[in-house]
Amino acid sequence: MATASIIEALYAVLQSRKSAAPDTSYVAGLYSRGINRILEKIGEEATEVIIAGKDAAVDPIDPDTRQAVVNETADLWFHTLVMLSHLDIPADELLGELEKRFGVSGIEEKAAREK
Amino acid sequence: MATASIIEALYAVLQSRKSAAPDTSYVAGLYSRGINRILEKIGEEATEVIIAGKDAAVDPIDPDTRQAVVNETADLWFHTLVMLSHLDIPADELLGELEKRFGVSGIEEKAAREK
Amino acid sequence: MATASIIEALYAVLQSRKSAAPDTSYVAGLYSRGINRILEKIGEEATEVIIAGKDAAVDPIDPDTRQAVVNETADLWFHTLVMLSHLDIPADELLGELEKRFGVSGIEEKAAREK
Amino acid sequence: MATASIIEALYAVLQSRKSAAPDTSYVAGLYSRGINRILEKIGEEATEVIIAGKDAAVDPIDPDTRQAVVNETADLWFHTLVMLSHLDIPADELLGELEKRFGVSGIEEKAAREK
Repeated sequence: MATASIIEALYAVLQSRKSAAPDTSYVAGLYSRGINRILEKIGEEATEVIIAGKDAAVDPIDPDTRQAVVNETADLWFHTLVMLSHLDIPADELLGELEKRFGVSGIEEKAAREK
Repeated sequence: MATASIIEALYAVLQSRKSAAPDTSYVAGLYSRGINRILEKIGEEATEVIIAGKDAAVDPIDPDTRQAVVNETADLWFHTLVMLSHLDIPADELLGELEKRFGVSGIEEKAAREK
Repeated sequence: MATASIIEALYAVLQSRKSAAPDTSYVAGLYSRGINRILEKIGEEATEVIIAGKDAAVDPIDPDTRQAVVNETADLWFHTLVMLSHLDIPADELLGELEKRFGVSGIEEKAAREK
Repeated sequence: MATASIIEALYAVLQSRKSAAPDTSYVAGLYSRGINRILEKIGEEATEVIIAGKDAAVDPIDPDTRQAVVNETADLWFHTLVMLSHLDIPADELLGELEKRFGVSGIEEKAAREK
């Protein structure tokens, strides 16, 4: 599979988990616990990204701290995709929004509306 | 451009901003303010995702609340990519880590290490 | 004023701000912007506590990093009190809950329900 | 015990836990796991405050949602005190900083430095 479609492929798997029994799948278990548990995971993973980012900035060569940044960021993205899937918001909409932001104009537009 | 390569294209743009003057680009400004400012943005955007996710769960039909989830999630992903770029960690490593997690085995493996 | 009653005194001031015009007081401005803005501030300040805590752990002697921990924690507590005041939940209830947790039994009880 | 001195009393208990064996006390266990685990708890509890605050804003009469706000805020304050204790920053410094912020002048000063 091409690297490029990972996000959409992952989202499709997450959607397919909606019909799984909660005790047979981590994601099905999250769905059954509801939006609060999914959002708690996003908060937890964001915290872990921040801590890993600080560790990597202090020790930028250490491969373990760098891998921790990758792992925690993947956990954060994963759980945001679980949230989108739970709310039935297609991952395509997220990718489309991100697409608007690359290129000079998109990033500058972001800057312009920044407080 | 194919939707599939948005993440890598965005990362490439972010990397190119490393040579821009801080006052000419939002992203160059973030780099110059350093890791703490970048991580603060991640915490802020994660909070906004959580709040938008709650609003969308309360009112799942309203297009504005759904669009807010998309926008805030895009902001969160965007700033995690700025962090990776700041730390010179390729977006490919993040996508590779996510790839490991889709498919049955990946998600179950995630479940297994969950406390 | 005795140090001991700072929390309640601060809460009383926050309550009195409910009748102030939004443009004459920072707190009145927060109330008028509503619960989402207040909760965003809690997320922002929590992030700043985490970053300051990491900096202080790396450089535990530096007075500036220690002062940053104090300042950011004060900002976080301040905004949680604004939230309580906005929701008309008395600060006494928070202090009562904290009181349950000190002493051996309270802390161990906390441990027992921790996953 | 007077309500007024709860924060300092709780801090004193937390300090006394520094000599406890990690497996005999929740707090001693946190100390032994180090700053990252303590800061992760702050991020988790802040997230739970935000979610509980949203639930209470949606349903402001329900006693369970109101109690959840109290409990999660107590958890957040508790873990920030664990952090201060871990870093040997006296709770008095936090209370002193908060004291500066009440009264008209203090809150307006806060407003003035707000971006």
